[in-house]
Amino acid sequence: MDCIFCKIIQGKIPSVKVYEDDNVFAFMDINPIGTGHTLVVPKTHAEDIFEISEQDAIEVLRAVRILSTAIKKGVQADGINILQLNGKAAGQVVPHLHVHIIPRWFDDGITISHWPMKAGDMDKIKEVAEKIKVEL
Amino acid sequence: MDCIFCKIIQGKIPSVKVYEDDNVFAFMDINPIGTGHTLVVPKTHAEDIFEISEQDAIEVLRAVRILSTAIKKGVQADGINILQLNGKAAGQVVPHLHVHIIPRWFDDGITISHWPMKAGDMDKIKEVAEKIKVEL
Repeated sequence: MDCIFCKIIQGKIPSVKVYEDDNVFAFMDINPIGTGHTLVVPKTHAEDIFEISEQDAIEVLRAVRILSTAIKKGVQADGINILQLNGKAAGQVVPHLHVHIIPRWFDDGITISHWPMKAGDMDKIKEVAEKIKVEL
Repeated sequence: MDCIFCKIIQGKIPSVKVYEDDNVFAFMDINPIGTGHTLVVPKTHAEDIFEISEQDAIEVLRAVRILSTAIKKGVQADGINILQLNGKAAGQVVPHLHVHIIPRWFDDGITISHWPMKAGDMDKIKEVAEKIKVEL
């Protein structure tokens, strides 16, 4: 399969690895938002959260928890953003599920976690909730 | 405990609930980034990813997977962002762990998943990786 992250996992493309276990691989993002930006991926190829198996998702979560603690300590961050993008419309670039762990500092200028606190239209919100519940 | 999300879970503060099980509660964000913005929280209070138990984290993950699929279908989204903020510096407002599920559409103008693709300094990246690995 012509997947850049599969090739990284297989060692066919070099990466700066920080963690590996039977199911999960983690390496530094080479186009980092900021210092310490790390990617965590399942070894078994899955495009996104809709495709990954529950067990692999749990293994990725376990690694994300371990790494978040290590990264926060290692780079002395004030906080951590965890971000996972599904689909091109959501900003996903590489179609192999990956979790971004992004260390944060006060006033670091990173805007991914900032949006205007604007009250929504409650009637519309309730209507949307019904559309979601129908699909559960 | 004076936690707004604990009060929402207990029904002391109203919310637009979309999902509930023994361990997890999910409701619509009333200050949504966009249509269908949903929050998933553990019922047992935990401030962030560093505090939540592994079992509760797995239960939250299970709900996030179920809800992501239902939300994508329910609002006919093109993609889904999953975002989780730890610490004030990371943009966390309510100190009770919550996962944001944010439906996305092409050209929806939401910028949380966009950042400049700028190559990092590889020497610095390798140095940071060593600092992380020491903490694992």
